Amino acid sequence: MSDEAFAAVVDAVRERVDPDPEERERLQEAVDTLVARVEDALQSVPVEADVVQVGSTARGTWIAGDRDIDLFVRFPTDLPREELEDYGLEIGHAVLPEGHEEFAEHPYVTGAYDGFDVDLVPCYAVESATAIASAVDRTPFHNRYLEDHLTPDLAADARVLKAFLKGIGIYGSNLRTQGFSGYLTELLVLEYGGFRPVLAAATDWTPPVRLDPEAHGRAEFDDALVVIDPTDPERNVAAVLSTTNVARFQHHARDLLADPREAVFDPDFPEPLSAAEVRDHLDRRGTAPVAVRFETPDLVDDQLYPQLRKSLAGVTDALDRRGFDVLRATAMADDAAVLFVELAVAERPAVERHEGPPIHVRDHAQRFYEKYADGEEYGPFVDGDRYVVERNREVRTAREFLESDALFDVGLGAHVETALEDDYDVLVDDQVATLADGFGVELARYFAPRP
Amino acid sequence: MSDEAFAAVVDAVRERVDPDPEERERLQEAVDTLVARVEDALQSVPVEADVVQVGSTARGTWIAGDRDIDLFVRFPTDLPREELEDYGLEIGHAVLPEGHEEFAEHPYVTGAYDGFDVDLVPCYAVESATAIASAVDRTPFHNRYLEDHLTPDLAADARVLKAFLKGIGIYGSNLRTQGFSGYLTELLVLEYGGFRPVLAAATDWTPPVRLDPEAHGRAEFDDALVVIDPTDPERNVAAVLSTTNVARFQHHARDLLADPREAVFDPDFPEPLSAAEVRDHLDRRGTAPVAVRFETPDLVDDQLYPQLRKSLAGVTDALDRRGFDVLRATAMADDAAVLFVELAVAERPAVERHEGPPIHVRDHAQRFYEKYADGEEYGPFVDGDRYVVERNREVRTAREFLESDALFDVGLGAHVETALEDDYDVLVDDQVATLADGFGVELARYFAPRP
Repeated sequence: MSDEAFAAVVDAVRERVDPDPEERERLQEAVDTLVARVEDALQSVPVEADVVQVGSTARGTWIAGDRDIDLFVRFPTDLPREELEDYGLEIGHAVLPEGHEEFAEHPYVTGAYDGFDVDLVPCYAVESATAIASAVDRTPFHNRYLEDHLTPDLAADARVLKAFLKGIGIYGSNLRTQGFSGYLTELLVLEYGGFRPVLAAATDWTPPVRLDPEAHGRAEFDDALVVIDPTDPERNVAAVLSTTNVARFQHHARDLLADPREAVFDPDFPEPLSAAEVRDHLDRRGTAPVAVRFETPDLVDDQLYPQLRKSLAGVTDALDRRGFDVLRATAMADDAAVLFVELAVAERPAVERHEGPPIHVRDHAQRFYEKYADGEEYGPFVDGDRYVVERNREVRTAREFLESDALFDVGLGAHVETALEDDYDVLVDDQVATLADGFGVELARYFAPRP
Repeated sequence: MSDEAFAAVVDAVRERVDPDPEERERLQEAVDTLVARVEDALQSVPVEADVVQVGSTARGTWIAGDRDIDLFVRFPTDLPREELEDYGLEIGHAVLPEGHEEFAEHPYVTGAYDGFDVDLVPCYAVESATAIASAVDRTPFHNRYLEDHLTPDLAADARVLKAFLKGIGIYGSNLRTQGFSGYLTELLVLEYGGFRPVLAAATDWTPPVRLDPEAHGRAEFDDALVVIDPTDPERNVAAVLSTTNVARFQHHARDLLADPREAVFDPDFPEPLSAAEVRDHLDRRGTAPVAVRFETPDLVDDQLYPQLRKSLAGVTDALDRRGFDVLRATAMADDAAVLFVELAVAERPAVERHEGPPIHVRDHAQRFYEKYADGEEYGPFVDGDRYVVERNREVRTAREFLESDALFDVGLGAHVETALEDDYDVLVDDQVATLADGFGVELARYFAPRP
């Protein structure tokens, strides 16, 4: 019964995610044209190079409607990096005259052709994936491995798994999502033999889980999920996947198997909260929200989000250490970036307990006593084997802390620190409701947290 | 220089604490009369018994003006306990016709004679201090040991040490003070050879400190100071001395040696605080005070204070666990008893974080998820490898907790629990200032804590 229901859901999902023949044909035509253009352009550069299509559209694992074409141009390994970059851009602009430059490991050209989003990326034609000069050099090896192993059936299941991961919000190996890459998704389907077997296995995972399809792993990893790259024994394909997202995957795998339904495959876009709704939530929760708002540093997401997370951790740790108990927190970014922290305690007394050394440690104890004996503190007095004083706190409210220079002593992301040095606002209590203007969806997710 | 100053202080103190010949003579006359009366009274009981004077007035270590005479009546060890108690009281009333009964290990009679406070205590005439039937049986052995070892000079130094301990508030082995007993004081003077050597040694103590004058100790103890009883190898004479009071002694020993002055020997009786002064302190400190006030259980101090301390620890632990951070607390007792707790946080949000099991622990995790999935909590969501919910708190304020039945789930002293079951008040914020009426001195000490 549940088996039939599950199969019916998978069939319905396949209907939506399998590209139809027409889409496949149009894609192929576009790729053929672009490859021919690259080969033409390569005539004008004075080195031997070739072009290879990579990514999900190359492997037949793309989801219907995805329109990404990735072409990698492979240059000889003895070509200086600067020349590789020059030639790469020259060819990119020749193939995609309307394209523009972006920067990952190397600069590359991205643009549109016949409705497809095309990336034209230069790399080195290394001998093996372990001999790479930069991460992009590895991609063609991934492509070849999967072409050799993925049957059409498994490719179809990989599409379903991708759709599932998108639906539950953990697809993408970028450092914002910290989820599953396409390559990881396909390796899991290969390893377990299909979509359902992957889910069934995940329900019983006890992290750390280590998979090594080629049984050649040569390194240890701390990650919750370790999948040794079949093309590189020293690499964990799941390195960016967070512990939380592994647990989420386990939850949703169990949930789908227990209650198969298609809606899970639809990404969740909640209605944005209004300022009044934010206030209602805060009233109901009785918490003390604070937010630090600043201009978003001009960084790609893969650099921005790790810096936001580091900054948020630095701020919440510092608040916790000062007794402003953090209940929950999140970072959000658009034009403005926001470190949003919901506190259980936003104000402390004027005095705080400060313990000195044990009294039997004579030198330290006497220094401590002399330091405080004539001050305005309460004490020193003796509690257990130690001196204690109750001294005045430097800051009594979370707002005071966030507006003080001490904010810059916490571990902030480098570009976040620069942005804060430039300018920032501190919002407290009702003021944070104004964040609904711009972050209504993020706040809706925050106030209705789901697995 | 410091040596001279120290000697001058000790000389001055001796002037005050050494009983003069007239006092000694009056005391001796009183003792002789009382002993004769006991021996007379013993004629009318049908067992062999004798009387022995014990305590500081027996050993010549009493401080001038102390007026305690302790007489122990020793009965044969084969006398049933009930008869010992009957004969003891009979003799007591005969010797002290105006006296009244009190209860320690046995009932005994206490009363006045010629301006002296007399205790007449029955005990068993055991063979040795290790063969005792109750703690009072040990006392005559302590007396004999000290008579054999204390020279007049050492006895004089013991008086100075007692005066010092009284001055700094830690003399007395009752369970309210948890300080130094007279016997312990005298043993320390014996062990180190005088008042100043005791102080000099204490400045360098690294607890646990173990002294064993007769080198016969047969047991291990957890206490900060261990002094094996010369008359009982299994007993620590300093067992009731608290860790805090050992540390206080070390502090004041260093202090007196560094800055000899007579004022230290005067007990500190601060001016009682007024209600307005209590409010001023609380305003300055910005704390949230709460107090539980109830009728003082009808117990001797040795039973009352341990119960108050236990109750205070139970209440402060429970408040801390609920996020009402305790800054400091104290128990006070007169006609009313009060558990006084100064909080850094008196109110919490409506919700609290509640962590579930790791998601990979499938059965537990699923039970947790199902329990909360349809409730009014926020979540369950995933954080790290666990489910988390934010559920409603049962109590949001310290007052609500103290007024709830949950107060009776904390570890309270038995008689305190009974008293609270009968009736109690909860005072918060400004209301606690009314405690100045009755506890002004205690509050003065609380708000000017000293070593």
